[in-house]
Amino acid sequence: MSSAGPGRRRGRPASAEKVAGEPGTRDRILSSARAEFAESGYDKASVRAIARGAGVDSALVHHYFGTKEQVFVAAVEGAFAPAMDIPDLLSGGREQWGEQLAGYVLGIWEDTVTRDPLLAIMRSAVANETAAAIFRGLIGRNLLRRVAGNLGAPDAELRVELAVAQLVGTALLRYVIKLEPIASVPVEELAGRLGPVVQRHLTG
Amino acid sequence: MSSAGPGRRRGRPASAEKVAGEPGTRDRILSSARAEFAESGYDKASVRAIARGAGVDSALVHHYFGTKEQVFVAAVEGAFAPAMDIPDLLSGGREQWGEQLAGYVLGIWEDTVTRDPLLAIMRSAVANETAAAIFRGLIGRNLLRRVAGNLGAPDAELRVELAVAQLVGTALLRYVIKLEPIASVPVEELAGRLGPVVQRHLTG
Repeated sequence: MSSAGPGRRRGRPASAEKVAGEPGTRDRILSSARAEFAESGYDKASVRAIARGAGVDSALVHHYFGTKEQVFVAAVEGAFAPAMDIPDLLSGGREQWGEQLAGYVLGIWEDTVTRDPLLAIMRSAVANETAAAIFRGLIGRNLLRRVAGNLGAPDAELRVELAVAQLVGTALLRYVIKLEPIASVPVEELAGRLGPVVQRHLTG
Repeated sequence: MSSAGPGRRRGRPASAEKVAGEPGTRDRILSSARAEFAESGYDKASVRAIARGAGVDSALVHHYFGTKEQVFVAAVEGAFAPAMDIPDLLSGGREQWGEQLAGYVLGIWEDTVTRDPLLAIMRSAVANETAAAIFRGLIGRNLLRRVAGNLGAPDAELRVELAVAQLVGTALLRYVIKLEPIASVPVEELAGRLGPVVQRHLTG
């Protein structure tokens, strides 16, 4: 732990310790990591670039998070934190879950703050088996177990995954591939079309 | 193909001439290109690796196809060739288009021969803007114009894209991310669940 600090920060361990102790340093690294993974994908992303983006030394990134893989997990875990609220989101009327889930997923993709980590996950998981495994774990823990638990059907997980497939596929075509007209259609119209389809997957 | 490119033969070894004249050389290069793009994605794929996989010299790959981008276009165009049959596929009863389109897309993903180029397209288009642009062009020419033409609705293209989003998203979770249980469910069950949803997007 203490060996992570020194590096080149004016040659004095205390200096890095101070940066490490600054509130927000950890968040700045995570934010830089999300931008870097979103831009470059898992394979090409480097801890050095993440450190540069956060204005810290690479050693500090390793100090906080460990390996590149562990930085990735921390960065995308944070992005998935809002997903923890989905069970609450779905606590309303059963017949509105489709609309709610579609609106929620489109919402986090429309918001440029949350879009970066989502792009990072998608770019990375498609290209890299390690990132795909992390993605599976996150989806499993955060989304499937929770939403499927609310459904209470024997095929609940498959239902949720088919709904997720519709939403992820839409995000892929709209935000990543930027295929027209789906890339430019107003988000409200998209939500209106997707809600009933997601509903059908969940409870139809 | 034996008459390939008289204008660009400069100083190629006699052995390469011979290989160039062999029937199947071009196809072998395309097949190797699909495997390489599927495995590595557009950015990391190299003409040298494609040539090695086909047992030819890099110069021959350039000779036939030009730049890496042009090799990519040729490789994925070939993968999309079956899509040309979709209008025929959809010439049956309108109420069966959903089932037919879902079955068709799942079929080309289940077949390991066609899965490679599809993986190549997905991995590449997600990570690389050039590949994404190529993908947009291919989808536009081969799928949207044709299928949407059959629908004859003012929002036909958006309808087709939402159906494609469901199918592409399913392929992503099943074949790329390998999320369970969707990765292991029998393809017939998947087709049975997706057909009505695709139908709804197209004509509902």
